[in-house]
Amino acid sequence: MDQKRTPLIEALVRHDEENVASYHVPGHKNGMISIKQGNLYFRDILRIDATEITGLDDLHDPESCIKDAEQLTALLYEVKKSYFLVNGSTVGNLAMILSVCGENDKVLVQRNCHKSITNGLKLAGAKPVFLPTSVDQQMAVSTGIDIERAKKALEVHQDCKAVILSNPNYYGHTVALRSLIEMAHEYGIPVLVDEAHGAHYQISELFPHSAIEEGADIVVHSAHKTLPAMTMGSYLHVNSNRVDEEKLGTYLHMLQSSSPSYPIMASLDLARYYAAELKEKGAIHILEDIKEWKEEIEKIEQLYIILPKSSVSVDPLKVTIGNRCGLSGFELQSLFERVGIFTEMADPFHVLFVLPLHIQVNKQEILNKMRTTIQGYTIQEEKLYPTVIEQEISPFPYSYKELEKKRKQLVGFGEAANRIASQTVIPYPPGIPLILDGEVITTKKLEQLKWLIESGARFQQEQYIKEGILEVYE
Amino acid sequence: MDQKRTPLIEALVRHDEENVASYHVPGHKNGMISIKQGNLYFRDILRIDATEITGLDDLHDPESCIKDAEQLTALLYEVKKSYFLVNGSTVGNLAMILSVCGENDKVLVQRNCHKSITNGLKLAGAKPVFLPTSVDQQMAVSTGIDIERAKKALEVHQDCKAVILSNPNYYGHTVALRSLIEMAHEYGIPVLVDEAHGAHYQISELFPHSAIEEGADIVVHSAHKTLPAMTMGSYLHVNSNRVDEEKLGTYLHMLQSSSPSYPIMASLDLARYYAAELKEKGAIHILEDIKEWKEEIEKIEQLYIILPKSSVSVDPLKVTIGNRCGLSGFELQSLFERVGIFTEMADPFHVLFVLPLHIQVNKQEILNKMRTTIQGYTIQEEKLYPTVIEQEISPFPYSYKELEKKRKQLVGFGEAANRIASQTVIPYPPGIPLILDGEVITTKKLEQLKWLIESGARFQQEQYIKEGILEVYE
Repeated sequence: MDQKRTPLIEALVRHDEENVASYHVPGHKNGMISIKQGNLYFRDILRIDATEITGLDDLHDPESCIKDAEQLTALLYEVKKSYFLVNGSTVGNLAMILSVCGENDKVLVQRNCHKSITNGLKLAGAKPVFLPTSVDQQMAVSTGIDIERAKKALEVHQDCKAVILSNPNYYGHTVALRSLIEMAHEYGIPVLVDEAHGAHYQISELFPHSAIEEGADIVVHSAHKTLPAMTMGSYLHVNSNRVDEEKLGTYLHMLQSSSPSYPIMASLDLARYYAAELKEKGAIHILEDIKEWKEEIEKIEQLYIILPKSSVSVDPLKVTIGNRCGLSGFELQSLFERVGIFTEMADPFHVLFVLPLHIQVNKQEILNKMRTTIQGYTIQEEKLYPTVIEQEISPFPYSYKELEKKRKQLVGFGEAANRIASQTVIPYPPGIPLILDGEVITTKKLEQLKWLIESGARFQQEQYIKEGILEVYE
Repeated sequence: MDQKRTPLIEALVRHDEENVASYHVPGHKNGMISIKQGNLYFRDILRIDATEITGLDDLHDPESCIKDAEQLTALLYEVKKSYFLVNGSTVGNLAMILSVCGENDKVLVQRNCHKSITNGLKLAGAKPVFLPTSVDQQMAVSTGIDIERAKKALEVHQDCKAVILSNPNYYGHTVALRSLIEMAHEYGIPVLVDEAHGAHYQISELFPHSAIEEGADIVVHSAHKTLPAMTMGSYLHVNSNRVDEEKLGTYLHMLQSSSPSYPIMASLDLARYYAAELKEKGAIHILEDIKEWKEEIEKIEQLYIILPKSSVSVDPLKVTIGNRCGLSGFELQSLFERVGIFTEMADPFHVLFVLPLHIQVNKQEILNKMRTTIQGYTIQEEKLYPTVIEQEISPFPYSYKELEKKRKQLVGFGEAANRIASQTVIPYPPGIPLILDGEVITTKKLEQLKWLIESGARFQQEQYIKEGILEVYE
């Protein structure tokens, strides 16, 4: 199969050229382009916003152009099978979890995982043992899974149904997983990895190792994060024979629209093509371009680039920038936004830049803006970063099934210590829970929460957090 | 609030105009437009393929432009609250079901419902009582819920947690639901309606009554089917106080990507605007245009338009066409496709046209093609339509929870009679199960299955159907 082909795009182009009259849904036909900015944005994409009519295959039962597109993807990533996803890595995570565990099944899960992982466990009714992560105190962030303690937990819990990891994290910190995966496999336990931020890793040796290469059984990629795919476009890769593909397929069907979006699927085909081209050409020029950009940043006195102290690999596309002016990360992010520079994320101390997978043509212009924006700020004595809590292995006192039956109540922060949280507190981005629904609320967690609120973080499903109130089980 | 506004579109346009430099995901930035037909189709839409950065709100916790857009939608539809969905009516159906019932809860469900309804029941572990539909023998299709038998079932099963209906069907046949809904409400039971094909009903008196008007508690609309929204764009409307909105919201968060698609959401805003304009102007011109089109079709000797014999209303946008030449519906559909006319669906006898919600500019050209295509075929004696099985109230012998533990085996059609199916047989479109996983396989169902196979129908998750093999529980 030829990586230079784009089977799904080709089928859609053919259809676009042939389609004289559409008496089928979707109903926009020519309607959308006649109103407001419809024509400005939608005119072209609507020509491929098709449905499962003859010749365009069917995501839920692929036999032709979608099947070919998925096979080319599997070949590129060197996996057994790849699935196109149209409901984000969210659905990949839900489906992979539901395919390996059921009610009351024990599962080892990395603590700083995306909420779709915990949601998958809830839907399954599983009983999680949350594994601690390593913490970089200087950056005040959780890096990745703490491999040594994960191995200890695995030895104790050999009866678990799966090990679920999330690697790399938002900052591109990538833990080497091979030894943990190999140990799990010795016990016959599959390893599932949410590699949402690593869809580009398999393309070049210059990127950190993908979990695919390290032997993980299922790996999920957000193609839309670092590859040129539309938002909600993702891949799920099956990388071994330990996976129940029938069950996996059943959940993917269940949890995705029966009318999947052709523009999103087409963009997944294009993204794979782009990645294949890049794999062939090599990524060195892009990385040199990024290196130059970083060197220019380092010359700006008020700013600095920060890397973790540990031995984790770091994705070169991810650049975490701090400042010496006493600004919080959120404030720095706002400053940049005011001059049209939009970054991925901020935390209380840093701003995260995600660099593109191509040469930046307007690099100088951007750097000038950043310089100009920050130069009026005076250098201050560096803040002391508060100590980030080291986590423990966190077995839940109750399984998700048992928690379902409990009643809930609201309490003020002052009465919340040592209660079991019935809400998950998620600053977003990065979408990683600070307190999990079902977990004991420690005094230290309460302190971290207050600090995030003061720094201006946003919370999904905020409820009454900003009023100092938490929901707990009675 | 002004229906002439499009709050989300406005925010995206502002962002598009201001956005100098993007250092955040999605990773396409300029990548996609540089390859293959990327520029041809994606260039414009990518300008609004954004993420939850400042000013663009967040579908999972709306406070500004998305909230406003949803509120305008609720005002237009005259409901309590409307949610934008980016994973199709599928996710609306799953979430509404999970919000009302749990394990072993009894639920009354209309038999010819979309598979996302049965999937929702499976995820919940509920115990369904499937309600029979009325059958139009002349058209050989299930029309809608059999109201009288549904009321009988409701009287017997007053302890059910919900009544779940699917109305209209694919052909636009719309049953009057009010009396059934009122009866359910007398028992304190909520009624949930999958109105995927009726997103336009509330716009005009000239369309059949929406379930919203009839008092249903939750109603799901595929905005992409009949309104100008992108595929996967849908609405979920809450229409009463009987709904646990917190639970509903939790499931909508769980089952949709944490990075929802802005193009899809923007199209939902535009679709609402389009519908509001049409509501103000009135739909009479469109319906007169359709009437003329139908009159021309009726003049073609080989073709005829068919309506159900019963008193169901029929959506004027849906036109079911049969032929007098002995062609199956699938064959007629293929004939039309060969001259570039793509219809929504075919069944063994008919082809379904879904007419657009605007004046057709190339009407004559299309009619000429249809005339030319069919005129060579000679009129034949009409086929006798086989009798379609009248259904019964179908309580499952086992709940979904109990079925989970059973083993499965494959048997030939010859040994399948009276066994309990462990696969759902779904010809798609329309995505309505012929045999349900968990249901007894009757001899008559086997005959229908063979007949569909002979007529060339497609099946999702076909497995070995076409080889005459079915999967059953041991």
